[in-house]
Amino acid sequence: MKKTTKETWRREIREAVRLAREQNPLAPSITNTVTINLVANAQLAVGGSAAMVYLADEGEAMASVGGAMYINMGTMLPVYAETLPRTAKALAEQGKPWVIDPVGIGIGGLRTSLLLGFRSDKPSIIRGNASEIIALAELWELESGKKSGGVRGVDSTDSVEAARTAAISLARHTGGAVAVSGPTDLVTDGKSVALAAGGSKFLPMITGAGCSLGGVAAVYACVATPFVAALTATAIYNFAGAKAESRAEGPASFQTAFLDALYQATPEDVGAQPFTIETVGK
Amino acid sequence: MKKTTKETWRREIREAVRLAREQNPLAPSITNTVTINLVANAQLAVGGSAAMVYLADEGEAMASVGGAMYINMGTMLPVYAETLPRTAKALAEQGKPWVIDPVGIGIGGLRTSLLLGFRSDKPSIIRGNASEIIALAELWELESGKKSGGVRGVDSTDSVEAARTAAISLARHTGGAVAVSGPTDLVTDGKSVALAAGGSKFLPMITGAGCSLGGVAAVYACVATPFVAALTATAIYNFAGAKAESRAEGPASFQTAFLDALYQATPEDVGAQPFTIETVGK
Amino acid sequence: MKKTTKETWRREIREAVRLAREQNPLAPSITNTVTINLVANAQLAVGGSAAMVYLADEGEAMASVGGAMYINMGTMLPVYAETLPRTAKALAEQGKPWVIDPVGIGIGGLRTSLLLGFRSDKPSIIRGNASEIIALAELWELESGKKSGGVRGVDSTDSVEAARTAAISLARHTGGAVAVSGPTDLVTDGKSVALAAGGSKFLPMITGAGCSLGGVAAVYACVATPFVAALTATAIYNFAGAKAESRAEGPASFQTAFLDALYQATPEDVGAQPFTIETVGK
Repeated sequence: MKKTTKETWRREIREAVRLAREQNPLAPSITNTVTINLVANAQLAVGGSAAMVYLADEGEAMASVGGAMYINMGTMLPVYAETLPRTAKALAEQGKPWVIDPVGIGIGGLRTSLLLGFRSDKPSIIRGNASEIIALAELWELESGKKSGGVRGVDSTDSVEAARTAAISLARHTGGAVAVSGPTDLVTDGKSVALAAGGSKFLPMITGAGCSLGGVAAVYACVATPFVAALTATAIYNFAGAKAESRAEGPASFQTAFLDALYQATPEDVGAQPFTIETVGK
Repeated sequence: MKKTTKETWRREIREAVRLAREQNPLAPSITNTVTINLVANAQLAVGGSAAMVYLADEGEAMASVGGAMYINMGTMLPVYAETLPRTAKALAEQGKPWVIDPVGIGIGGLRTSLLLGFRSDKPSIIRGNASEIIALAELWELESGKKSGGVRGVDSTDSVEAARTAAISLARHTGGAVAVSGPTDLVTDGKSVALAAGGSKFLPMITGAGCSLGGVAAVYACVATPFVAALTATAIYNFAGAKAESRAEGPASFQTAFLDALYQATPEDVGAQPFTIETVGK
Repeated sequence: MKKTTKETWRREIREAVRLAREQNPLAPSITNTVTINLVANAQLAVGGSAAMVYLADEGEAMASVGGAMYINMGTMLPVYAETLPRTAKALAEQGKPWVIDPVGIGIGGLRTSLLLGFRSDKPSIIRGNASEIIALAELWELESGKKSGGVRGVDSTDSVEAARTAAISLARHTGGAVAVSGPTDLVTDGKSVALAAGGSKFLPMITGAGCSLGGVAAVYACVATPFVAALTATAIYNFAGAKAESRAEGPASFQTAFLDALYQATPEDVGAQPFTIETVGK
């Protein structure tokens, strides 16, 4: 098998950025109420179209009409007990890619039971912080490499590197990609592991940096493979984060500059973001 | 019947802007979770007061205490099956004006059944993009002039001009006004059709531009007729959009400048916005 | 008993600001959908960590894992009938401090019945505008000093000074603190009354200024007594409000500058905010 070179990945990243702006793909979401506005605005800023729903038949309708979907577990509502399984099933039946963000894994019974269901109705991209990724591998009884330090509310207590084994296990299980956010981000499809530094110290200081990255990954999943979509979302966040930090006086002016930078980013800007990539052993 | 001159409309627009700032009218909303914050802040920026509810008895209470109400169908929740009909009934009983935004018409069963109910419990102002306006006229079996190109998620696939017949039909059916948002906005009360250009390329790039226009129209509906309220909301959005675009580097700095411009806009600024107006034949 | 001097209070305020930044305490919320994003971002800006939930077992889980909690009644959902009492009970059992914001008191049946329940499952800090504070004292049949002018939607129709008796009654009943927001803010623990001027004319023009103050008070309640937490939240809002106003062109640029100023504020900045304090007679 021919090894994909780094330059090939860069070309695919540039292509994903370009196609999203050109095709304005619709990536509907079922997402938490805290950061739902930022998710939508970030999706629009990279060229996508957003639509958010709560009800089961609307989730199914969105699975049909969208190019990919985003499901974020941040704020559970009673109706999700019906909506999330039916939407995941509709996505599976139609072969549509979708992104899961298992925010708050471990909190409450509904979240756990829904996430257990996604072990078989598999997402294409799993995005989370290190603790969430480790906890999901443990919940699904996959190799996780270590016991999680635990999720504290929505915050990670583990390092990205500590989540490497869990991320690879999850990607191999789903056949898709996993993106772990942190000071250095890790993206894997189970065969390759990419590490990308960058971003900004302000990203963890605005609520929804991770959530909106998931929504942006769903936009790119409309026009690229799960791995390239996750890599592109990570790269554009690192580009926009660094650019915005240089103009920010605090987290709120950072958020404004960040969304503006997502909008301004060219395929070349994003394709030029530094990362390393290595092949994983069996 | 004496024809109302353009200058008369301008005077009424200036008066609506002035009265909203002077009286701080309360225009409560039942609105989607994506853009609920922007709706409230836009209402405050033009001088109104905001209050958002979900429950049926609270919708009825708001119908009593508010000068006008705003109902936006963007994100359906199970409780809306009870809340929206009871609120619409309360508004009708008390003769209070209200604005409907039929976002996402065609998605799911609940949305359709609620919108069908509003055929008889009539809103005073209908605000939407071209595809939504055409789809609503079709749902209510009114003359729509053409088959809709369809709503894609929350986006229009039809031009504003294509929605002219549907808008006029809807206005004549409700006895109120219809506002169609687009590059050139169309506002009609079934007798006159106003066309207003302006705004900004950034307005469709922030989520909630249309939703918040509906909320602002509800504020003006507390102090003006439905047609003048819709016309004033459209005019202040065109004014603020153009002003904000000149200061924006992207959609997020645009949104900040836009809300600031809504706040700064004087009656003279808004009354001076260009529009054409023509009388419609029977 | 030795009288606490003003300088002692200033030291405790500085200490609360410092400890919140040092310890990054988790203060989860059950809060309204209108301003939920601002609450979270304000909590992060002062050094805290945020997590928002809706379900009953998740409220209980948050009561366990958080240092203090924030419950805001702004937008009632059906599930709150179960979630709020169970969360309040869990907080009481574990002796965790919590902040209530009785937004919209008087609207609808559920809100009233839940607020009645909090008469015995007592919050540690009550934050509201003058009309809300008077209305809560009346609902709990405590001395309120006057009949409330009434809450109009979410706005106060009474002056802060008019709420003095009610605030003292409420603080004595709960054994905690009460913070009344207005042009001059009043904070009391039933023994002392602090009055703090400052802030900005723009604070009432952004939705969620009061809500987010409640969330920030919950962060400080993780590291200080209820009275000091309420005093510190009030002082940092007055500091950040004044600083932001000098840079703002309208309410939206104010909000950005305000959150940035919350982030930038040092213990010395906040401890230096002017206030008066007096001992209350029996």
